[in-house]
Amino acid sequence: MNFKAILHLEDSVYCYALDERTVRVMLRVDSEDVFEKITLVYGNKYDYYLVQESEEMQKAFSCSSYDYYTATVRLKDVRFVYVFRLVCGGKTYYFSEDGVSEFYDFSLAYYNSFQLPFLNRADIMPVVPWFTGAVFYEIFVERFKMGDEGKDTSYIDLPWGEIPGPKSFAGGDLTGIIQKLDYLKSLGISALYLTPVFPSISNHKYDISNYYEIDPRFGDKETFRTLVNEAHARGIRIVLDAVFNHCSDRFPAFQDVVKRGKASPYFDWFLVHGDKIEGENYEYFGVCSYMPKLNTSNREVRKYLIDAALYWMKEFGIDGWRLDVSDEVSHDFWRHFREAVKEQNPDGIILGENWHDSYPYLRGDQFDGIMNYALTKACIDYFAKGILDAEGFQKRLSELYVRNTEQVNRMMLNLLDSHDTHRFYTLAGKDADKLICALAVIYLHTGAPCVYYGTEVPLEGGYDPDCRRCMDWRVEKTPTKVMYMMRALSRLRAREEIVKGDISFGAEGELFLLERRSKARLRLTVRCGTGRTPYVPKGEVLLSHNFGGDCLLGTGFVIEEIKEDRNG
Amino acid sequence: MNFKAILHLEDSVYCYALDERTVRVMLRVDSEDVFEKITLVYGNKYDYYLVQESEEMQKAFSCSSYDYYTATVRLKDVRFVYVFRLVCGGKTYYFSEDGVSEFYDFSLAYYNSFQLPFLNRADIMPVVPWFTGAVFYEIFVERFKMGDEGKDTSYIDLPWGEIPGPKSFAGGDLTGIIQKLDYLKSLGISALYLTPVFPSISNHKYDISNYYEIDPRFGDKETFRTLVNEAHARGIRIVLDAVFNHCSDRFPAFQDVVKRGKASPYFDWFLVHGDKIEGENYEYFGVCSYMPKLNTSNREVRKYLIDAALYWMKEFGIDGWRLDVSDEVSHDFWRHFREAVKEQNPDGIILGENWHDSYPYLRGDQFDGIMNYALTKACIDYFAKGILDAEGFQKRLSELYVRNTEQVNRMMLNLLDSHDTHRFYTLAGKDADKLICALAVIYLHTGAPCVYYGTEVPLEGGYDPDCRRCMDWRVEKTPTKVMYMMRALSRLRAREEIVKGDISFGAEGELFLLERRSKARLRLTVRCGTGRTPYVPKGEVLLSHNFGGDCLLGTGFVIEEIKEDRNG
Repeated sequence: MNFKAILHLEDSVYCYALDERTVRVMLRVDSEDVFEKITLVYGNKYDYYLVQESEEMQKAFSCSSYDYYTATVRLKDVRFVYVFRLVCGGKTYYFSEDGVSEFYDFSLAYYNSFQLPFLNRADIMPVVPWFTGAVFYEIFVERFKMGDEGKDTSYIDLPWGEIPGPKSFAGGDLTGIIQKLDYLKSLGISALYLTPVFPSISNHKYDISNYYEIDPRFGDKETFRTLVNEAHARGIRIVLDAVFNHCSDRFPAFQDVVKRGKASPYFDWFLVHGDKIEGENYEYFGVCSYMPKLNTSNREVRKYLIDAALYWMKEFGIDGWRLDVSDEVSHDFWRHFREAVKEQNPDGIILGENWHDSYPYLRGDQFDGIMNYALTKACIDYFAKGILDAEGFQKRLSELYVRNTEQVNRMMLNLLDSHDTHRFYTLAGKDADKLICALAVIYLHTGAPCVYYGTEVPLEGGYDPDCRRCMDWRVEKTPTKVMYMMRALSRLRAREEIVKGDISFGAEGELFLLERRSKARLRLTVRCGTGRTPYVPKGEVLLSHNFGGDCLLGTGFVIEEIKEDRNG
Repeated sequence: MNFKAILHLEDSVYCYALDERTVRVMLRVDSEDVFEKITLVYGNKYDYYLVQESEEMQKAFSCSSYDYYTATVRLKDVRFVYVFRLVCGGKTYYFSEDGVSEFYDFSLAYYNSFQLPFLNRADIMPVVPWFTGAVFYEIFVERFKMGDEGKDTSYIDLPWGEIPGPKSFAGGDLTGIIQKLDYLKSLGISALYLTPVFPSISNHKYDISNYYEIDPRFGDKETFRTLVNEAHARGIRIVLDAVFNHCSDRFPAFQDVVKRGKASPYFDWFLVHGDKIEGENYEYFGVCSYMPKLNTSNREVRKYLIDAALYWMKEFGIDGWRLDVSDEVSHDFWRHFREAVKEQNPDGIILGENWHDSYPYLRGDQFDGIMNYALTKACIDYFAKGILDAEGFQKRLSELYVRNTEQVNRMMLNLLDSHDTHRFYTLAGKDADKLICALAVIYLHTGAPCVYYGTEVPLEGGYDPDCRRCMDWRVEKTPTKVMYMMRALSRLRAREEIVKGDISFGAEGELFLLERRSKARLRLTVRCGTGRTPYVPKGEVLLSHNFGGDCLLGTGFVIEEIKEDRNG
């Protein structure tokens, strides 16, 4: 047994509360070791030396190097202490804070057992209920639809449909989105994530110069209010983009520092190396000196930005925030942000833009979830590029799953592409069947799918600015295979017994397998391939049995619904 | 190479900022693997694909199963990204977020390099400056000294010096402590940790019925003010005991719930299973139903307790808090507590009572340090019980050290015993030389030592209540070997170049070795044994060269000071 590969971290994703009486425990072991049995031996802190309970752990996820065993236990007492008992090669071992031993003295457990000392309500992360069945749609506002025909259009320099450059303006606006809400509803969309809508001279508007207004080219506050209300009337939520890492160099506070240097009351709002701004002697986003980094360690800045976030929640009733470049902002800032946002609306969703393993932001005190770019990468590697095979894909998805708690996994925003990536369809060599297979995975994965506008066309697009092409509205008249499939998948997501079910991944030869299994004795199985070995021969007509029955077939995948009778 | 034993966790004790430009990185590897070289390959997020810098990592700590390599790097840009390059058996490997590989493509590093996205000031934990050279002394107030001869003494039932029972009262009070400040100063003490001083019917006062008063048997607010002022005048800090996990069943809010059940406005201040109190249907501390657990998830409770903490800081100028049963209180509560306490006084120290690995509380947002009971256990196992040999002791100390960041290690309260344990002297078979050796270790370890009152006698004592015997004041007239050594060790701790030095542990045969090495080219080495194989033959007279020179010899240990000339 490779006992040095065994890992367990207390009070972490390896042991956490699902509710005030239920804990989930996970143990990592070497995937090459074969265990006859792994048992969680647990009890109550104050009589553990006398009484221990046992729960056999199940292998829940198999990754390339490790297997992950889990157990979920309902407690009588919430002072939870535990060790692991492993049987391997006929020998029994114990694993505690002090490591692996062949004998364990429970009378001394108070020194080295693992523990979750008390399940306090304030530390238990809730899942935002509406997120569970949601289908997101990301809109790059400037390119979705121009609705306000009466506005001053002199700034527009890109004829709708032509290939954009980095500084093109095509005229998309909020009125355009309002006009298309019924269309989005018909696609099965239930939440919109909008790129920034606040005043900015750029087309992307990630360089904000005023956090309290709507960009005049997009509309005004009344247009925005109409958008929120009309969306809500259709059961569609609105999530805005919180660009709090940096602002525009036109932001008045920065301009004051440019003028007055250290004499400005806003000097500490930025990170200036020196007594005044000279050239690029301040921190800014990436390589863009027109986006000075805000010093969120400064309390006034913290208050200013959080007040702005609350303003749009209170005055317009938006449903949450996607946090731009969230990993470069302090944990301290996000803790205060979360507290304020959740006090205003416990169901307001908080989604970070973190590309890497983001567990330090996902411990319950900062974000609800993140844009799941690691899943994006896995989907690209399997479906689009074929770097991973089905076995590799299922292992990769397992590896990503065990990074976070079940609550966080249920609030992940699962996406195939965005305004910051190539379009998946283009990466997949314009193979719509591969796109559909990948959509099936993100729609039925734990968390919520987020479809980038135009995926239903499907739009093509390389890296920024090419991934920000104008929406092609011809789809409304000539619906596509992708649209058809998005609607069908949305209908599945609307069913609680499916989206609340536990998930597992597997591989059957060249087919990847995803299962959701619910308490309602229902099993939903997605089998899909990469197009090289499709489940249904390529080119075959799509077939739907409408899910009242049993299966949805597509080129490259099948989704089956199986009613289980566990009593017989 | 056992690559599955390799561990690195981003944005954790494995990679953190020491200041706004300096990061420390740690990698765990199998201690049985031999590496020719381990290199940190790092750079700036935005040009890492083009330019990488290298820093060779050093083996800093050797534990029983793992070795820990560290590197400390000064950054030009604070967007820190990195991978590890390991050379083992002539082969080169890379270790990234995706695991171990034989090749690494830096052009795709943005997907899977490790990172610390931005070193934000608000997330960097500072060390409380006064703590670095401090020597603590814990006083169990009821048993230290009765100073107020004029008070009503009718409650006293234990003649001073007799063996206490669980409910004995011997009469110790705050005036007694004031009277002994000069004595404590002469011992080299620079901070007092007092067990609770607030009103309570017990002798230990961990069941508080009023968080805004001084227990009348201990004195009143004026006595307490005098104590703080007189201590401060002597350079002695005062740290109080924050019992926020639970209160007394006489606490008025609980009494109101007892009377009115759910109709009480305080009903949610406690965790009652039902609509009213019936028998023991509520959560309480341990097996003590007279100590109902406070519901710190309730915001009113949170505010009430934090306000009380601030009251004693603002009105009396106390220097910090030791947090009772801190691991059973929510992280959420401690985050708010820390923010309020540090806003009131950034140098106010926050020390948790956590017996287990407490990293989730020590990430910089909750406590500064904890009572280091894991070190206590290691000292008992080596010096007192002989369960560990010198090699095992050094490995154990290394294992404990790598649990936390350098800042936290510098704010650990290192103790041999307390009011909650057997006295170390008793566990060591009343061998004062073993006690002295162990004291040398905790005085020169990173962090601050905390000597339990009477250790200098040394007092005997088994488990509670026996460890709470009355102080024996005959020591003032007949100083002991332990007192002599405490004074000498305190003089060492007063020297910045020693207590700010880096620490390392080792073993030389049967001697344990602790080194502090400073930038001032000074090396302080402590060699000590367990009494079985003392460095100096048992019974030999203690000898001090006063540290202006070079060494301090004692039965069982030697402390040498070596001036290094690294240039030749």
